[in-house]
Amino acid sequence: MSRTHHGRRFALSAVDEGAEEVVVGYVVTPIGYVESPLVDRADAPKQGEGAPDAWLDIAPEYAEGLQDLRVGDDVVLLTWLDRADRTVLTTRPRDDPANPLTGVFSTRSPDRPNPIGLHQVRVLGRDGTRVRVGPLEALDGTPVVDLKPVL
Amino acid sequence: MSRTHHGRRFALSAVDEGAEEVVVGYVVTPIGYVESPLVDRADAPKQGEGAPDAWLDIAPEYAEGLQDLRVGDDVVLLTWLDRADRTVLTTRPRDDPANPLTGVFSTRSPDRPNPIGLHQVRVLGRDGTRVRVGPLEALDGTPVVDLKPVL
Repeated sequence: MSRTHHGRRFALSAVDEGAEEVVVGYVVTPIGYVESPLVDRADAPKQGEGAPDAWLDIAPEYAEGLQDLRVGDDVVLLTWLDRADRTVLTTRPRDDPANPLTGVFSTRSPDRPNPIGLHQVRVLGRDGTRVRVGPLEALDGTPVVDLKPVL
Repeated sequence: MSRTHHGRRFALSAVDEGAEEVVVGYVVTPIGYVESPLVDRADAPKQGEGAPDAWLDIAPEYAEGLQDLRVGDDVVLLTWLDRADRTVLTTRPRDDPANPLTGVFSTRSPDRPNPIGLHQVRVLGRDGTRVRVGPLEALDGTPVVDLKPVL
Protein backbone atom coordinates (compact mmCIF):
# COMPACT_ATOMS: atom_id res chain seq x y z
CA MET A 1 0.00 0.00 0.00
CA SER A 2 1.26 3.42 -0.90
CA ARG A 3 1.46 5.75 2.05
CA THR A 4 2.46 8.93 0.29
CA HIS A 5 0.37 11.96 1.19
CA HIS A 6 -0.97 14.53 -1.18
CA GLY A 7 -2.76 17.82 -0.69
CA ARG A 8 -1.50 18.30 2.82
CA ARG A 9 -0.57 21.35 4.88
CA PHE A 10 -3.71 23.44 4.80
CA ALA A 11 -6.25 24.82 7.22
CA LEU A 12 -9.93 24.00 6.88
CA SER A 13 -12.25 26.98 6.95
CA ALA A 14 -16.00 27.47 6.80
CA VAL A 15 -18.38 30.42 6.65
CA ASP A 16 -20.27 30.92 9.90
CA GLU A 17 -23.75 32.33 10.58
CA GLY A 18 -22.43 35.89 10.26
CA ALA A 19 -20.90 35.04 6.86
CA GLU A 20 -17.43 35.34 8.36
CA GLU A 21 -14.82 32.80 7.34
CA VAL A 22 -13.51 30.92 10.38
CA VAL A 23 -10.89 28.20 10.77
CA VAL A 24 -12.56 24.95 11.80
CA GLY A 25 -9.46 22.83 11.89
CA TYR A 26 -5.95 22.02 10.78
CA VAL A 27 -4.79 18.92 8.95
CA VAL A 28 -2.34 16.64 10.74
CA THR A 29 -0.49 14.55 8.17
CA PRO A 30 1.09 11.26 9.26
CA ILE A 31 4.87 11.25 8.76
CA GLY A 32 4.88 7.47 9.23
CA TYR A 33 3.32 4.58 11.10
CA VAL A 34 3.99 2.43 14.17
CA GLU A 35 4.84 -1.24 13.62
CA SER A 36 4.15 -3.03 16.89
CA PRO A 37 3.15 -6.47 18.20
CA LEU A 38 0.23 -4.65 19.92
CA VAL A 39 -2.73 -5.07 17.61
CA ASP A 40 -5.75 -4.85 19.88
CA ARG A 41 -6.68 -2.00 22.18
CA ALA A 42 -7.92 -4.47 24.81
CA ASP A 43 -4.40 -5.94 25.01
CA ALA A 44 -2.58 -2.64 25.24
CA PRO A 45 -0.78 -2.02 28.53
CA LYS A 46 -1.69 1.15 30.43
CA GLN A 47 0.77 4.03 30.71
CA GLY A 48 3.85 2.15 29.63
CA GLU A 49 3.65 -0.75 32.08
CA GLY A 50 5.25 -3.63 30.18
CA ALA A 51 4.94 -1.99 26.78
CA PRO A 52 6.96 -3.59 23.95
CA ASP A 53 9.52 -2.04 21.61
CA ALA A 54 8.33 -1.02 18.15
CA TRP A 55 9.46 0.26 14.77
CA LEU A 56 8.51 3.68 13.45
CA ASP A 57 8.31 3.42 9.66
CA ILE A 58 8.87 7.05 8.64
CA ALA A 59 8.22 8.11 5.04
CA PRO A 60 11.50 8.71 3.11
CA GLU A 61 10.50 12.31 2.30
CA TYR A 62 11.16 13.17 5.98
CA ALA A 63 14.70 11.67 6.05
CA GLU A 64 16.39 15.07 6.45
CA GLY A 65 14.35 15.78 9.55
CA LEU A 66 15.65 12.54 11.12
CA GLN A 67 19.32 13.09 10.26
CA ASP A 68 20.41 13.95 13.82
CA LEU A 69 18.41 11.29 15.65
CA ARG A 70 20.88 8.94 17.40
CA VAL A 71 20.62 5.61 19.19
CA GLY A 72 20.25 6.40 22.89
CA ASP A 73 18.32 9.64 22.36
CA ASP A 74 15.29 10.11 24.60
CA VAL A 75 12.45 11.56 22.57
CA VAL A 76 8.81 12.50 22.90
CA LEU A 77 6.92 10.66 20.18
CA LEU A 78 3.61 12.20 19.11
CA THR A 79 1.03 9.91 17.55
CA TRP A 80 -2.53 10.28 16.28
CA LEU A 81 -4.64 7.75 18.18
CA ASP A 82 -6.82 6.92 15.21
CA ARG A 83 -9.00 4.38 17.04
CA ALA A 84 -10.00 6.84 19.78
CA ASP A 85 -13.54 8.09 20.42
CA ARG A 86 -13.36 11.85 19.91
CA THR A 87 -16.77 12.57 21.44
CA VAL A 88 -15.75 11.55 24.99
CA LEU A 89 -15.40 14.38 27.58
CA THR A 90 -15.45 12.35 30.84
CA THR A 91 -14.01 8.91 31.51
CA ARG A 92 -12.99 6.56 34.32
CA PRO A 93 -9.17 6.57 34.41
CA ARG A 94 -7.52 3.31 33.32
CA ASP A 95 -10.99 2.02 32.32
CA ASP A 96 -11.42 1.02 35.97
CA PRO A 97 -15.09 1.16 37.05
CA ALA A 98 -13.91 1.89 40.61
CA ASN A 99 -12.46 5.22 39.45
CA PRO A 100 -14.77 8.28 39.40
CA LEU A 101 -15.87 9.88 36.13
CA THR A 102 -13.13 12.40 35.38
CA GLY A 103 -12.82 15.19 32.83
CA VAL A 104 -10.63 13.93 29.99
CA PHE A 105 -8.28 16.93 30.24
CA SER A 106 -7.28 15.60 33.69
CA THR A 107 -6.56 12.12 32.29
CA ARG A 108 -4.27 10.48 29.76
CA SER A 109 -7.17 8.58 28.16
CA PRO A 110 -6.85 8.14 24.38
CA ASP A 111 -10.55 9.05 24.06
CA ARG A 112 -10.59 12.87 23.84
CA PRO A 113 -11.46 15.59 21.29
CA ASN A 114 -7.99 15.65 19.69
CA PRO A 115 -6.49 12.19 20.31
CA ILE A 116 -2.79 13.03 20.20
CA GLY A 117 -0.66 10.47 22.02
CA LEU A 118 2.50 11.54 23.89
CA HIS A 119 5.02 8.77 24.47
CA GLN A 120 8.46 9.15 26.01
CA VAL A 121 10.65 6.57 24.30
CA ARG A 122 14.33 5.85 23.70
CA VAL A 123 15.82 5.41 20.25
CA LEU A 124 17.10 1.82 20.13
CA GLY A 125 18.15 1.52 16.50
CA ARG A 126 18.04 3.00 13.02
CA ASP A 127 17.62 1.46 9.57
CA GLY A 128 17.36 4.33 7.11
CA THR A 129 14.10 6.09 7.92
CA ARG A 130 12.94 3.18 10.09
CA VAL A 131 13.51 3.97 13.76
CA ARG A 132 13.41 1.37 16.55
CA VAL A 133 12.03 2.80 19.81
CA GLY A 134 10.74 1.58 23.13
CA PRO A 135 8.93 1.03 25.26
CA LEU A 136 5.83 2.09 23.31
CA GLU A 137 2.19 1.43 24.17
CA ALA A 138 0.79 2.47 20.75
CA LEU A 139 -1.09 -0.01 18.56
CA ASP A 140 0.24 -1.38 15.28
CA GLY A 141 -0.63 1.00 12.44
CA THR A 142 -0.94 4.10 14.62
CA PRO A 143 0.03 7.22 12.64
CA VAL A 144 3.21 9.01 13.78
CA VAL A 145 2.95 12.81 13.66
CA ASP A 146 6.11 14.19 15.32
CA LEU A 147 9.28 13.48 17.30
CA LYS A 148 10.85 16.00 19.68
CA PRO A 149 13.85 15.76 22.05
CA VAL A 150 13.07 15.40 25.76
CA LEU A 151 14.06 18.66 27.45
CA MET B 1 -16.11 36.49 16.25
CA SER B 2 -17.83 33.17 16.63
CA ARG B 3 -15.39 30.39 17.34
CA THR B 4 -17.76 27.46 17.24
CA HIS B 5 -16.63 24.63 15.02
CA HIS B 6 -18.76 22.63 12.63
CA GLY B 7 -18.15 19.52 10.58
CA ARG B 8 -15.24 18.38 12.67
CA ARG B 9 -13.96 14.94 13.70
CA PHE B 10 -13.25 13.27 10.40
CA ALA B 11 -10.32 11.82 8.53
CA LEU B 12 -9.36 13.08 5.08
CA SER B 13 -8.89 10.39 2.47
CA ALA B 14 -7.88 10.32 -1.18
CA VAL B 15 -7.59 7.73 -3.91
CA ASP B 16 -3.98 6.92 -4.77
CA GLU B 17 -2.41 5.81 -8.05
CA GLY B 18 -3.53 2.23 -7.47
CA ALA B 19 -7.13 3.43 -6.93
CA GLU B 20 -6.89 2.52 -3.26
CA GLU B 21 -8.39 4.90 -0.75
CA VAL B 22 -5.73 6.10 1.70
CA VAL B 23 -5.88 8.43 4.69
CA VAL B 24 -4.00 11.64 3.93
CA GLY B 25 -4.64 13.34 7.23
CA TYR B 26 -6.72 13.92 10.32
CA VAL B 27 -8.45 17.11 11.36
CA VAL B 28 -7.28 18.76 14.57
CA THR B 29 -10.05 21.00 15.88
CA PRO B 30 -9.13 23.86 18.22
CA ILE B 31 -10.82 23.52 21.63
CA GLY B 32 -9.93 27.15 22.41
CA TYR B 33 -7.34 29.85 21.96
CA VAL B 34 -4.40 31.37 23.87
CA GLU B 35 -4.77 34.96 25.11
CA SER B 36 -1.26 36.25 25.74
CA PRO B 37 0.68 39.51 25.76
CA LEU B 38 3.04 37.81 23.25
CA VAL B 39 1.88 38.96 19.83
CA ASP B 40 4.97 38.72 17.64
CA ARG B 41 7.09 35.65 17.01
CA ALA B 42 10.25 37.79 17.04
CA ASP B 43 9.48 38.81 20.64
CA ALA B 44 8.72 35.31 21.89
CA PRO B 45 11.16 33.95 24.49
CA LYS B 46 12.86 30.64 23.70
CA GLN B 47 11.96 27.47 25.60
CA GLY B 48 10.16 29.16 28.47
CA GLU B 49 12.88 31.60 29.53
CA GLY B 50 10.94 34.54 30.92
CA ALA B 51 7.65 33.52 29.29
CA PRO B 52 4.53 35.32 30.60
CA ASP B 53 1.33 33.87 32.04
CA ALA B 54 -1.66 33.59 29.70
CA TRP B 55 -5.36 32.74 29.54
CA LEU B 56 -6.69 29.73 27.69
CA ASP B 57 -10.16 30.64 26.40
CA ILE B 58 -11.72 27.18 26.03
CA ALA B 59 -15.03 26.81 24.15
CA PRO B 60 -17.97 26.16 26.56
CA GLU B 61 -18.83 22.89 24.79
CA TYR B 62 -15.69 21.37 26.38
CA ALA B 63 -16.60 22.40 29.97
CA GLU B 64 -17.16 18.80 31.12
CA GLY B 65 -13.66 17.83 30.02
CA LEU B 66 -12.23 20.60 32.25
CA GLN B 67 -14.29 19.76 35.34
CA ASP B 68 -11.39 18.21 37.29
CA LEU B 69 -8.72 20.76 36.42
CA ARG B 70 -7.60 22.48 39.63
CA VAL B 71 -5.44 25.47 40.49
CA GLY B 72 -1.93 24.15 41.12
CA ASP B 73 -2.19 21.27 38.63
CA ASP B 74 0.84 20.80 36.38
CA VAL B 75 -0.33 20.06 32.85
CA VAL B 76 1.05 19.51 29.39
CA LEU B 77 -0.69 21.98 27.09
CA LEU B 78 -0.80 21.04 23.40
CA THR B 79 -1.18 23.85 20.88
CA TRP B 80 -1.27 24.11 17.10
CA LEU B 81 1.51 26.53 16.12
CA ASP B 82 -0.50 28.10 13.31
CA ARG B 83 2.23 30.53 12.22
CA ALA B 84 4.84 27.79 11.71
CA ASP B 85 6.44 26.88 8.37
CA ARG B 86 5.45 23.25 7.77
CA THR B 87 7.91 22.71 4.91
CA VAL B 88 11.04 23.00 7.11
CA LEU B 89 13.03 19.77 7.76
CA THR B 90 16.33 21.24 9.03
CA THR B 91 16.91 24.31 11.14
CA ARG B 92 19.50 26.05 13.32
CA PRO B 93 18.35 25.56 16.93
CA ARG B 94 17.16 28.73 18.69
CA ASP B 95 17.50 30.58 15.36
CA ASP B 96 21.20 31.01 16.22
CA PRO B 97 23.38 31.11 13.06
CA ALA B 98 26.26 29.69 15.14
CA ASN B 99 24.32 26.44 15.59
CA PRO B 100 24.63 23.73 12.91
CA LEU B 101 21.73 22.82 10.64
CA THR B 102 19.84 20.15 12.57
CA GLY B 103 17.01 17.80 11.62
CA VAL B 104 13.78 19.24 13.02
CA PHE B 105 12.92 15.99 14.82
CA SER B 106 15.99 16.61 17.01
CA THR B 107 14.86 20.16 17.85
CA ARG B 108 11.92 21.91 19.48
CA SER B 109 11.59 24.38 16.59
CA PRO B 110 7.98 25.40 15.84
CA ASP B 111 8.78 24.99 12.12
CA ARG B 112 8.12 21.29 11.38
CA PRO B 113 5.69 19.14 9.36
CA ASN B 114 3.06 18.94 12.12
CA PRO B 115 3.57 22.05 14.28
CA ILE B 116 2.18 20.81 17.58
CA GLY B 117 3.51 22.76 20.56
CA LEU B 118 4.13 21.04 23.91
CA HIS B 119 4.18 23.35 26.91
CA GLN B 120 4.48 22.33 30.55
CA VAL B 121 2.47 24.87 32.51
CA ARG B 122 0.79 25.25 35.89
CA VAL B 123 -2.88 26.07 36.32
CA LEU B 124 -2.97 29.46 38.08
CA GLY B 125 -6.69 30.23 38.01
CA ARG B 126 -10.10 29.36 36.61
CA ASP B 127 -13.03 31.47 35.46
CA GLY B 128 -15.58 29.09 33.97
CA THR B 129 -13.97 27.63 30.88
CA ARG B 130 -11.22 30.26 30.92
CA VAL B 131 -8.05 28.82 32.44
CA ARG B 132 -5.09 30.91 33.60
CA VAL B 133 -1.74 29.14 33.07
CA GLY B 134 1.93 29.94 33.06
CA PRO B 135 4.61 30.35 32.09
CA LEU B 136 3.63 30.00 28.42
CA GLU B 137 5.69 30.93 25.36
CA ALA B 138 2.78 30.63 22.86
CA LEU B 139 1.63 33.64 20.83
CA ASP B 140 -1.72 35.37 21.31
CA GLY B 141 -4.38 33.61 19.24
CA THR B 142 -2.60 30.25 19.11
CA PRO B 143 -5.14 27.40 18.91
CA VAL B 144 -5.32 25.09 21.95
CA VAL B 145 -5.80 21.42 21.05
CA ASP B 146 -5.41 19.43 24.29
CA LEU B 147 -4.49 19.41 27.97
CA LYS B 148 -3.04 16.37 29.78
CA PRO B 149 -1.76 15.85 33.33
CA VAL B 150 2.02 15.70 33.78
CA LEU B 151 2.92 12.10 34.65
